[in-house]
Amino acid sequence: MAPFINDRFLLDSGTAFTLFEKYAKDLPIVDYHCHINPKDIAENRHFTDLAELWLSGDHYKWRLMRAAGIAEEYITGDAPSRDKFLCWAKTIGRAVASPLYHWNCLELKRYFGIDEPLSERNAEEIWDKTCAMIKDDPDKYSARGLIGSSGVEVICTTDDPCDDLRWHRMIKEDPSFKTTVLPSFRPDPILDIEKDSYLSYISRLSEVSGIKIESLNDLISSLDQRIAYFRDLGCRIADHGMEKILFEKADEEEVANIFKKRKSSTLTSSEEAKYKTFILLHCAKRYHESGFAMQLHFGCIRDVNEKMRSSLGPNCGCDSIAGSTDLVTPLSGLLSELTEQDTLPKTILYSLDPNNNAVIDTLCGCFRNVVHGAAWWFNDNLNGMKDHLKSLSCQGYLPAFTGMLTDSRSFLSYTRHEYFRRILCSFIGEQIDKGLFPNDEEIPGSVIKDICYNNPSALFK
Amino acid sequence: MAPFINDRFLLDSGTAFTLFEKYAKDLPIVDYHCHINPKDIAENRHFTDLAELWLSGDHYKWRLMRAAGIAEEYITGDAPSRDKFLCWAKTIGRAVASPLYHWNCLELKRYFGIDEPLSERNAEEIWDKTCAMIKDDPDKYSARGLIGSSGVEVICTTDDPCDDLRWHRMIKEDPSFKTTVLPSFRPDPILDIEKDSYLSYISRLSEVSGIKIESLNDLISSLDQRIAYFRDLGCRIADHGMEKILFEKADEEEVANIFKKRKSSTLTSSEEAKYKTFILLHCAKRYHESGFAMQLHFGCIRDVNEKMRSSLGPNCGCDSIAGSTDLVTPLSGLLSELTEQDTLPKTILYSLDPNNNAVIDTLCGCFRNVVHGAAWWFNDNLNGMKDHLKSLSCQGYLPAFTGMLTDSRSFLSYTRHEYFRRILCSFIGEQIDKGLFPNDEEIPGSVIKDICYNNPSALFK
Amino acid sequence: MAPFINDRFLLDSGTAFTLFEKYAKDLPIVDYHCHINPKDIAENRHFTDLAELWLSGDHYKWRLMRAAGIAEEYITGDAPSRDKFLCWAKTIGRAVASPLYHWNCLELKRYFGIDEPLSERNAEEIWDKTCAMIKDDPDKYSARGLIGSSGVEVICTTDDPCDDLRWHRMIKEDPSFKTTVLPSFRPDPILDIEKDSYLSYISRLSEVSGIKIESLNDLISSLDQRIAYFRDLGCRIADHGMEKILFEKADEEEVANIFKKRKSSTLTSSEEAKYKTFILLHCAKRYHESGFAMQLHFGCIRDVNEKMRSSLGPNCGCDSIAGSTDLVTPLSGLLSELTEQDTLPKTILYSLDPNNNAVIDTLCGCFRNVVHGAAWWFNDNLNGMKDHLKSLSCQGYLPAFTGMLTDSRSFLSYTRHEYFRRILCSFIGEQIDKGLFPNDEEIPGSVIKDICYNNPSALFK
Repeated sequence: MAPFINDRFLLDSGTAFTLFEKYAKDLPIVDYHCHINPKDIAENRHFTDLAELWLSGDHYKWRLMRAAGIAEEYITGDAPSRDKFLCWAKTIGRAVASPLYHWNCLELKRYFGIDEPLSERNAEEIWDKTCAMIKDDPDKYSARGLIGSSGVEVICTTDDPCDDLRWHRMIKEDPSFKTTVLPSFRPDPILDIEKDSYLSYISRLSEVSGIKIESLNDLISSLDQRIAYFRDLGCRIADHGMEKILFEKADEEEVANIFKKRKSSTLTSSEEAKYKTFILLHCAKRYHESGFAMQLHFGCIRDVNEKMRSSLGPNCGCDSIAGSTDLVTPLSGLLSELTEQDTLPKTILYSLDPNNNAVIDTLCGCFRNVVHGAAWWFNDNLNGMKDHLKSLSCQGYLPAFTGMLTDSRSFLSYTRHEYFRRILCSFIGEQIDKGLFPNDEEIPGSVIKDICYNNPSALFK
Repeated sequence: MAPFINDRFLLDSGTAFTLFEKYAKDLPIVDYHCHINPKDIAENRHFTDLAELWLSGDHYKWRLMRAAGIAEEYITGDAPSRDKFLCWAKTIGRAVASPLYHWNCLELKRYFGIDEPLSERNAEEIWDKTCAMIKDDPDKYSARGLIGSSGVEVICTTDDPCDDLRWHRMIKEDPSFKTTVLPSFRPDPILDIEKDSYLSYISRLSEVSGIKIESLNDLISSLDQRIAYFRDLGCRIADHGMEKILFEKADEEEVANIFKKRKSSTLTSSEEAKYKTFILLHCAKRYHESGFAMQLHFGCIRDVNEKMRSSLGPNCGCDSIAGSTDLVTPLSGLLSELTEQDTLPKTILYSLDPNNNAVIDTLCGCFRNVVHGAAWWFNDNLNGMKDHLKSLSCQGYLPAFTGMLTDSRSFLSYTRHEYFRRILCSFIGEQIDKGLFPNDEEIPGSVIKDICYNNPSALFK
Repeated sequence: MAPFINDRFLLDSGTAFTLFEKYAKDLPIVDYHCHINPKDIAENRHFTDLAELWLSGDHYKWRLMRAAGIAEEYITGDAPSRDKFLCWAKTIGRAVASPLYHWNCLELKRYFGIDEPLSERNAEEIWDKTCAMIKDDPDKYSARGLIGSSGVEVICTTDDPCDDLRWHRMIKEDPSFKTTVLPSFRPDPILDIEKDSYLSYISRLSEVSGIKIESLNDLISSLDQRIAYFRDLGCRIADHGMEKILFEKADEEEVANIFKKRKSSTLTSSEEAKYKTFILLHCAKRYHESGFAMQLHFGCIRDVNEKMRSSLGPNCGCDSIAGSTDLVTPLSGLLSELTEQDTLPKTILYSLDPNNNAVIDTLCGCFRNVVHGAAWWFNDNLNGMKDHLKSLSCQGYLPAFTGMLTDSRSFLSYTRHEYFRRILCSFIGEQIDKGLFPNDEEIPGSVIKDICYNNPSALFK
């Protein structure tokens, strides 16, 4: 029997196989959006076992285990690592048609050479085997070891404006590590004026930037300082996360008053929207000047299970697609305003709601330099990617797609680039096999190389 | 030529065929949500012809006939049964890719042994033949005859809290009938405080429960009494139908005042929402204590054609998907509140809007014991089920799915379980055939058995 | 190597091929909704080259070129025709899975006999060849030449109520031209009371109709006069375009006051909605009396890029799907009201949002004579049509579908009917091949003929 992960995995035809082998397989990885901790790379973190690598921080897996009825003790609780792993094995072994099944198999195959899918039946054996492999060659399974063996050329982490980027500096200064590791600028705490933590964040920003922040002007100066600071360390990408896009214009004076008001009282939702719009427009302008791409992530409602949030904190696996909201009016308002002011940076849009695919693709077509980012989070799987590619190629222009990113906290996730590339090659191969694109490798091959490597690389040119 | 309904019907591959034959085909049916009249079972209703069995109450068919231009006289009017049947045959015979085509064929095959699809060409012949078969063996085509020959182990009807459940009692006391028939608790009239009929319903509830309802407290006592009454007769499932989920918290005192106010004046929409939220939270708490599963059906806008409603009443085939509305905020609020209070019963969510699939599946993942119910009504067909399975298996955990139900008013609808099982086996078979799940019958077989039988059975354990 | 556009193009099986060849291929075209300029037909406009035929007015192509990074100069600017064409060739040649790729190929094949898909590689050769062909036989590539060789039986243009229809009259009076060319009544400027241009439009309407418009009554008289005028010239179809459906009833007196108020002040959004509802209800009533079908196009947000709109004007390729909005409440209100008043004309619904497919199909099932129109604009392609057919056949009644239309400004777009017919035959062929419809050509064949010819033709009976 062929190994589960074999050369033909996800490649539905000979055409797809040829495209993958010839044009996609060996391209370096540009992972321009992830949540890897740069400290782990700087210090070259080592790992003990698959529970640490897989289960300690992965809320995708936690959700699946909860759905399978596993007690919380074996998920985020105090149960021994081995027991947690056995519960995971029991869960994943039956997860027909789950993307986690495929990710698991790919990671076992590529990093441990294990052909058999994990299930309750072989859980103990695989636990013992992988523990031994890690023990035998700990460097291979270290942060840098895994990045190196995955062929990663560029990594962009996600960083707070107040971060001093010391780990990034340390990585940069180490000539022995060949992968380029860059920060991304994620100023959500500066925009989230409605949050309890806002004022203390502004104090911290004041300290870090060395600028006393008393007025909106001061805030803008601090913000500009941090953008420049990040740029100097090689940052070329910013990222904004928001439940919904807001767009409500106001002049600087009004926003200055809103900023002042916030120190002593609560804002109306319109005041919030005006402040956020003003700051986002300013950020975009600076990104445009600084050669940053601007990522906008929206459509996610976070921490909807209050009991879980209060006991485990954020990112514990209780986030959901936000669903129905008016996206087009504010988003087109924002993009139109930036276009008029000639301050629109390269913009990459991600919605958590797959129903937004067609809307986003048709909206991107109304502006230059605005593209639909890779299928995000709950959509980052076989079905979600196919739907995304169908919509993007049909409403947009496939060769301009900026390709895949892991969005992950794990050093084993680089196989998702392989996952994506196989799906992309299958998608294009199917077009050829069905007579919908000429049977001519050259053009599709160049499109594949653009999507998988050249377009994301160009973000750093 | 092979009969239209043959062993391979809907089974796209040999793998799918094997899975169906070995694991799904012979499992008993647990039909845990339907609209069968328990009186018909208690009295073992007999039928005369296919017009009575098929056309007298089936608004799916009425809609199709209207779309085909058939005059209302031949649909809900006074035309002779035979003429109505001929109009139906003319309509369905051309209904390419309609689920009703397949349901019709399955019912003709399984209950009458007829291989040929119904159309204008053979309508008279099939009419005569089926009339003769029913006349020759009326017991076979009686309510109990059809249930028996369909292999139904459990039926849950849908019952009003004021119902005395006399028919259920009668069925229970008859040892000759082997199928378990249980009531479901559907307290919509207690929640629908905005309806004209509300106050008279509360009077009736007062009478039935023997509790004088003057205050909110009294109402709650009556409600509790009815839940206990239903539980004593074996009820384990409740059901709520609502156009949209509302969630607006208020303390008991405020809701008590709202209840009082309703007797003499109209409520604001916020007051309505507060009342409904309060009652639903209370119901859920009782369900949790009583071991009931709670079904929530939403996203349907009913009786949108006023002329038809005023002439034919409700359920005449003029219901539509409600479309765009904010679902996640109130629904997550409700589930989070019940989780915090530790009063969340097993909850099964059904939306009429297929665009909600991904939203519901990701939201379910944020809570324990909340699952996405079977594709509902307009989605209960080949496309709708496939989309539902894709979303559920991709965002959720397929082995935890509680499987199929007919939601039907007809005794011929049990074949829809076969329809579902074939589609499920095809779906899983395709995963195996495409190399997306190992070629190993054991795990998929156990998943199929869980979905088709064990999981719905567990609702009654 | 078979030509890219060959007999099997888009036909996934032998069954599909047979259905297409036997039932669809040779049917005349009834193009009952397009944006062809009737002047071009009346004067039999001649063309010089593919840049004029393809690029001078086609915002689909402009959007794709922008997405590919082509400078505006080569899109809507002053660059020479040949250079624009070369930029287009470069763009389209890499547009994997874009509908424009297939349209391009079909048009090159059917009108120029060119087998090879256009790309950067053969752009100059194809430019020279097509220029020569047009020069050699200019009549073949004239408006009438192209219509004639496309087998078009009926064309409905889209016309302003103030239009004197002189070109239509001229075409009608010319016995040498065999295609029936009819106007469609599109009274958007009469409904768009919020627009700056409203009052001047009403003045023009007054002039054209010869009725002094001082009151709502006068406006209605003018409107009626124009409907009668259009009807006399053969018009049988009306069309309304709106970002979203509004429905807010008011009595005539109130609306008369709103109309008066507009002359001197701005209206509230509720007043706007009441005016629009009143006029639309009146229009529908007249359409019903006059035997017009009423088309409603909604879900589009236009000109979202202000910079482009101010420099290039409307229809420059900056329109988007509008996305999330409450559609069902106002639309069902409108249709229910017209049903009650017995003034509902044949109504054809088009939404730009593909997420509305299921909603529209289930809503249509609640009313007689209301149907879901062909997949519109951004959905008028392989994926969009398949999704539309799946939803329509599953929720609605496929044989009642009124079929395809080009909605185009180009004389080369008639091949889109072929495109549609191939997809339709593939869809139905797949049903047969998968055992979901009997292997019997007769019924599917008649359904195909109804959809492609009989149903649209019946709009003019």
